[in-house]
Amino acid sequence: MIEDKNTSKTPISELGEFGLINHLTKNLGIKQKTSDFGIGDDAAVLDFKNKKCVLTTDLLIEGVHFDLAYVPLKHLGYKAVMVNLSDVYAMNATASQITVSIAVSNRFPLEALEELYAGIETAAKIYNIDVVGGDTTSSTTGLIISITAIGHANKEDLVYRNGANENDLLVVTGDLGAAYMGLQILEREKQVFEVNPNSQPDLDQYTYLIERQLKPEARKDIPELLKALDVKPTSMIDISDGLSSEVIHLCTQSNVGVNLYEEKIPLDPAVISVCEEFKLNSTTVALNGGEDYELLFTIKQEDYPKIKANPNLTVIGHITDKKSGIGLVTRANEKIQLQAQGWNPIKE
Amino acid sequence: MIEDKNTSKTPISELGEFGLINHLTKNLGIKQKTSDFGIGDDAAVLDFKNKKCVLTTDLLIEGVHFDLAYVPLKHLGYKAVMVNLSDVYAMNATASQITVSIAVSNRFPLEALEELYAGIETAAKIYNIDVVGGDTTSSTTGLIISITAIGHANKEDLVYRNGANENDLLVVTGDLGAAYMGLQILEREKQVFEVNPNSQPDLDQYTYLIERQLKPEARKDIPELLKALDVKPTSMIDISDGLSSEVIHLCTQSNVGVNLYEEKIPLDPAVISVCEEFKLNSTTVALNGGEDYELLFTIKQEDYPKIKANPNLTVIGHITDKKSGIGLVTRANEKIQLQAQGWNPIKE
Repeated sequence: MIEDKNTSKTPISELGEFGLINHLTKNLGIKQKTSDFGIGDDAAVLDFKNKKCVLTTDLLIEGVHFDLAYVPLKHLGYKAVMVNLSDVYAMNATASQITVSIAVSNRFPLEALEELYAGIETAAKIYNIDVVGGDTTSSTTGLIISITAIGHANKEDLVYRNGANENDLLVVTGDLGAAYMGLQILEREKQVFEVNPNSQPDLDQYTYLIERQLKPEARKDIPELLKALDVKPTSMIDISDGLSSEVIHLCTQSNVGVNLYEEKIPLDPAVISVCEEFKLNSTTVALNGGEDYELLFTIKQEDYPKIKANPNLTVIGHITDKKSGIGLVTRANEKIQLQAQGWNPIKE
Repeated sequence: MIEDKNTSKTPISELGEFGLINHLTKNLGIKQKTSDFGIGDDAAVLDFKNKKCVLTTDLLIEGVHFDLAYVPLKHLGYKAVMVNLSDVYAMNATASQITVSIAVSNRFPLEALEELYAGIETAAKIYNIDVVGGDTTSSTTGLIISITAIGHANKEDLVYRNGANENDLLVVTGDLGAAYMGLQILEREKQVFEVNPNSQPDLDQYTYLIERQLKPEARKDIPELLKALDVKPTSMIDISDGLSSEVIHLCTQSNVGVNLYEEKIPLDPAVISVCEEFKLNSTTVALNGGEDYELLFTIKQEDYPKIKANPNLTVIGHITDKKSGIGLVTRANEKIQLQAQGWNPIKE
C-alpha cells in the first residue's frame, strides 16, 4: 500500500541510474576488516586471509515471494537480507558482506526505494555486515530483489549438509510454524480490507506471528552459541522451506534415515491457538509452513549434555540407518514416511 | 521466438523447484582449485588463500536488457556471464566462479531453460570458471537473470578506477560501437518480421555487428596480456554503458581531466558503413552505444613502448589536470566537453 502514503513523491527517472545508486548507497560505508573496497568500482574487493569464503544468493520476486499489499518495504528490505544471512549461518560461518541488486518499475517513487534501503541498512547494522556492491535497474513490472551474502569461517568450523551419522541427535533452534501462520493472518486481513477498506483490524494478539513473517531474524547467535558450548554439528541446514523439506535434504545428502518425533516439534502457544482458529493441524504447519529461518542440525550423542539446558535448542529426533527411512513418529506412536512435498495428514 | 520451435515441451512445474535445479545443474562440476564446494549446500565454499577476492553482480531483465524476439536463449546465457566476467577483468583479476539465479514465468518450457543453461555452461567452460550456486524460482512475467561473478588477484595486481594521473595515456581494447549497431540491425529486422513474417533477411554482411551484440566476449586476455607486457594500468574500467560514460567515471574517480581524440577511437569498418546506412554519426555511436565489453585503462607514458605494437590496444587520449575538463577533441580540432549522458552532436 505504498501508493497510500500522503507524502511527496520523487520519480526515480529524475535521478538516472548512477544518481539513484549514489543516492541509495551514500550511507553505506565499509566497516568489516574483510572488506577492502565496497561500492564504486567494477567489483568489490574482499580479503579472507587464511579463512574459507562462503557465498550464497537468493532472488525475491514481487507477486511470488512477497505481496506489497501487506509487506512494508522497510520490513521487506530487512527480510531479504535475513533470508541470505540465514544460509551463511547454516554453514556455521560468520556473515560479513552482502551485495544488493534491485529492479523496480516506474510506479515506485524514490521514497519507496529509500524505505527498502532503510530496512537493508538496519539489517546490515544489526548483523554487522557491509553492503559492498549491487546493481539497480528498471523492471517492466514489480519489484525484484537479488541478494548475495558472503561470509567466512575457519576450514575446521564449516558444517555441511552431508555429515549426519547414525545415532546423531536432530536439533532445531527456536520454534516453527509462526511465520506461516503470520502469513495466513495477513492474507485474511488483506481480504477483509478489500471488502471493507475502512475496517480497523485488531492484530495485537497476533503480534508474534506477524513479526515472524514480516521481520524474521537470522540465527547469527547460533554459530556463536555452538562455539561457546564447544559443539560442532555434524550437519546443518537452515529452515526456509519447512522442517519436512529440510529434514529430507539433510538425510538424503548424509545418506541416512531419521526418526522425527511429532511431540518434540517446538511450537509457540500462539501458533497452536491460531491453528485452532484456522482449523489447521499445527504439526502440518510446522513441517511445511516454511520461512522460519531457524537452523536444523545434528550433533553427536556425546554432545547432548552440552546443549540440553539451552532454551534455544530442542532435540526433535535421532538419525537412523538409511533403510529405516525418513520418518515422523506421531503422537499416536505411528511412524509415517515424510514426503518430499511435506507430510499431508489429509491424504493419510 | 522460443514458442516457434517444433519440439516437444516439458512444463517446468512437472519438475518442481529442486527437480528443476538438479536437472539444470547436473553437468556443473567444480574444477577451479579455489572452489572447495559448489552447488548443493546452503552456500558455496571458496578458498582464495593469500589472494584478494573480487566480487561483482548484474541483473538482466526481459524487456529491459534483452528482447527474446531476437535473442536466442543460448546466446543470452552466454552474454549474461560475459557481462559479469567483464567487471572482474576490469579489476585486472582472474575470474573463477559465478552464481546464477533465474526467475521464469510458466510460459518457459524446460527446454528453453536448458538452452539458457547451455549458453551459461559454454561460457563457464571457455572462460574456465565454476558455477557454484544460485537460485531458481518463478516470476509473474518474463525472464530475470541475476549473476554474481567472483575472482581473485594478488593485492599488487589489482587496478581500481581511481588511479589515473596527469599525463597518463588513455587506452582502449578492441573496437567500439559494433554491439550497438548490431542491436539496431536486429531491431530493424524485428520490425520487418512483424510486417511480413515470411521475409527472409540476409544478414551476412552484418555478421560481425550481430555477433558483438548477441555473443560478446569479455576480455579475459587483457589482464594476461598486460602481465606478459609487464604493464600495470594506473586505472581501469570496462565499457558497458559506452565510452563516454566510462571515461567520465575514470576521470571523476581519479580527480583528473582528459583529452580524448575523436580520430583515435577504434571503429570496425562494418560500424562505419552501417552508421552511414542508418544515418548515424559513428563517433556518437562509439561514445554512447554501450555493450562493447572492452576495457578502458590508463598507463604511465613510460609504458607506451611496451604496448604500441599491440593490435588489441589503441591509445585514444591522455590524462590532463582536473580543471582542463573531460574533453573530446574533434576531427576539426575543437574541444567539446563530454556529457554524462554522452556527447550528442545533434545538440551542439
